[in-house]
Amino acid sequence: MTSDPAHGSELSMFTQIDYAVADAIATITLQRPDRLNAFTHTMADELVAACDLAENDDTVRAVVVTGSGRAFCAGADLDPQAAQFSQEPRPDQVFEDGVPRDIGGVVSLRFAAMLKPTIAAINGPAVGIGATMTLPMDIRIASDTARFGFVFVRRNLVPEAASSWFLPRVVGMSKAMEWVVTGRVFDAPEAHAAGLISEVIADGGVLDAAYVLAREITENASPVAVASAKQMLWAMSGAESPWAAHELDSRVLHELVASTDFAEGVAAFLERRKPQFGLRPRTDLPAAIARWPRGS
Amino acid sequence: MTSDPAHGSELSMFTQIDYAVADAIATITLQRPDRLNAFTHTMADELVAACDLAENDDTVRAVVVTGSGRAFCAGADLDPQAAQFSQEPRPDQVFEDGVPRDIGGVVSLRFAAMLKPTIAAINGPAVGIGATMTLPMDIRIASDTARFGFVFVRRNLVPEAASSWFLPRVVGMSKAMEWVVTGRVFDAPEAHAAGLISEVIADGGVLDAAYVLAREITENASPVAVASAKQMLWAMSGAESPWAAHELDSRVLHELVASTDFAEGVAAFLERRKPQFGLRPRTDLPAAIARWPRGS
Amino acid sequence: MTSDPAHGSELSMFTQIDYAVADAIATITLQRPDRLNAFTHTMADELVAACDLAENDDTVRAVVVTGSGRAFCAGADLDPQAAQFSQEPRPDQVFEDGVPRDIGGVVSLRFAAMLKPTIAAINGPAVGIGATMTLPMDIRIASDTARFGFVFVRRNLVPEAASSWFLPRVVGMSKAMEWVVTGRVFDAPEAHAAGLISEVIADGGVLDAAYVLAREITENASPVAVASAKQMLWAMSGAESPWAAHELDSRVLHELVASTDFAEGVAAFLERRKPQFGLRPRTDLPAAIARWPRGS
Repeated sequence: MTSDPAHGSELSMFTQIDYAVADAIATITLQRPDRLNAFTHTMADELVAACDLAENDDTVRAVVVTGSGRAFCAGADLDPQAAQFSQEPRPDQVFEDGVPRDIGGVVSLRFAAMLKPTIAAINGPAVGIGATMTLPMDIRIASDTARFGFVFVRRNLVPEAASSWFLPRVVGMSKAMEWVVTGRVFDAPEAHAAGLISEVIADGGVLDAAYVLAREITENASPVAVASAKQMLWAMSGAESPWAAHELDSRVLHELVASTDFAEGVAAFLERRKPQFGLRPRTDLPAAIARWPRGS
Repeated sequence: MTSDPAHGSELSMFTQIDYAVADAIATITLQRPDRLNAFTHTMADELVAACDLAENDDTVRAVVVTGSGRAFCAGADLDPQAAQFSQEPRPDQVFEDGVPRDIGGVVSLRFAAMLKPTIAAINGPAVGIGATMTLPMDIRIASDTARFGFVFVRRNLVPEAASSWFLPRVVGMSKAMEWVVTGRVFDAPEAHAAGLISEVIADGGVLDAAYVLAREITENASPVAVASAKQMLWAMSGAESPWAAHELDSRVLHELVASTDFAEGVAAFLERRKPQFGLRPRTDLPAAIARWPRGS
Repeated sequence: MTSDPAHGSELSMFTQIDYAVADAIATITLQRPDRLNAFTHTMADELVAACDLAENDDTVRAVVVTGSGRAFCAGADLDPQAAQFSQEPRPDQVFEDGVPRDIGGVVSLRFAAMLKPTIAAINGPAVGIGATMTLPMDIRIASDTARFGFVFVRRNLVPEAASSWFLPRVVGMSKAMEWVVTGRVFDAPEAHAAGLISEVIADGGVLDAAYVLAREITENASPVAVASAKQMLWAMSGAESPWAAHELDSRVLHELVASTDFAEGVAAFLERRKPQFGLRPRTDLPAAIARWPRGS
């Protein structure tokens, strides 16, 4: 996939990622292959900006995130010049008492709030923030060359990017604890067996496989419904009782069944053809859907 | 299994399901085989009534839910005459501001509150509400001919029946998100690998296998303990801290260890025989066990 | 592994367990082999005391829990002389209204609050409290001779030791419900497939395998980071939103990146050598890390 000429100006905004749109799919590529796409403050800012671009472009109906070269992301750049931990925090990225926000969390909460379905195409090693940033994405698939590590405790760090919240929900507490307290690196089959990734793809085909999945969504799913469903699942995964879900379901469905896209979805099903949905998340989200997580 | 003549009057109450009791097991059968057991307002009402019947019948110690014909339930009936979405809501099924309750949720919350252990014997396709209604049941097994789909986004709908709460707890967030954002249909082995179902049964044996499981319960388990444990697990799965569970455990155990059925359970264990429990959930539930979910 | 002579005085404190330290690993052995290590009030008290010992000994960097003889723990001792349920509660182990605390929960909450990484080496049958006490441990591995049972409902009891909170988080609700409502006993491969245990070890090698895992931690992981990460994962698994995790991450990382052990962790990584961490959980825990669960 090459970048769409119409989006050339967007591409030029970035120095550590690529952003390109084609076939209703935005591709965000971590673009520091000589550093195994190690994570920096600049990359964090650019990832957030790319999420904003994808969300505000009504032609984008799915997002794929991948890495350039042989790694997905080798973790925080430990080079003192680039390091995320040694840099002055941005004034808008501190808590009230001056403690800086973890920038990995800034990125992961931005992906969690994303209204477009997002697929991580993990093309190689994904370590530290390289692993945790993918947890709020909707689908993760990986190359058979990928390796994973929640290596934080080996550097006297703790899991970041809100991964203490996301990881147990994605793989269960048993695997989450084992991976975190050992900090060991593990391979794609182990990640697959534990449910961290949905598929292991051989022979360098992971990006193509991500596009197949993305098209499964773009050709069949209502953009408004996907955006709503994503926010609902995450929000309700933290709710105390299913009654909260029942009330939210009821309110969202009450709006959606009155929509033109519901009529189109039913007609397409009965006529055994692909639906042509017209509504867009940016403008047409049901009133009952609040942006999740709260405050981001 | 044929219906017990003693329960013939109950059977005749229903037009879209069958209800029959034999060997301490109630069987609820979705009975619209010509429509692949598609879900309607009438079916919803009858399912709730059947849950009430099973719960109020002290001879019933387990419930099996299955479908008639080749499908379990193909989802909401999209025929305008039958459709759940086009029908006027019942006055007792609206929220305070007049928004109608999702009737899928009315059914799933009823099953969640059920005091009898409930086994879904998924004999064929289970799509939409056909899949989500089974999530609050205690055990799900399926025929190798079953297929599953959380297809909502393909009709501009969102997961209902409080499934945004139940599904991540049953299969984890990774599979839940993938199934929901793609809306794709998947087969029984994939459902099994993800933990959505416990067993895949070949050669049409799913109902017999459900009865084997049901008898494992009816012959060994205390009805009061099973009813209590079900409510505790669901309630505590949404609790913030294990201290809530510890206090609840302590209070329930304090009541149960003083019961005749505890003495019987220990005696049967020491004498290597089947226990004969006398207490019943309808009348003998520990005071510390509240009906879950709250308010249903 | 034999007990360290330096810790001989500790060993002599106990009558139903062994406690020994070697190579920075404390081993707690349930020591009633003639009773299949059946659980008693005395054993509960001794397990809590052993947790305190391990936590207050700065030389201990990991804990292994196993059983003597052919069983791990066959559950509560049903012998009337020893039975946990017939004994007078200790005055400090009752709730305000006089209801006694479940002593299984006293033990499991103590393990949940443990600041040292804890590995269950399940050498044989683990039934009832024998299974539930392992749920708050960080890693569970088992011998191929192990069997498991959440058998409570067969004695008119409910899952205890706060397992209604822990079990769904460890294995998901689907397996949790099935195991609890049937009360059936299952083998190590089923436990492994469901994620209850990480590995099945053949030929009596489970304790050696636990030491291999423990050394993976003691040789690589920062003790303070492991203690912090454990508390964070459990606490955030019950939090409503990832924002709580993001704020906690940020505060803990802000403290840790200023520590000497972070510098050591990075240096060791860049120099491709094992790190030598100096900070200890007893004295050097980040201020933002609260002991979890609350109140224990």
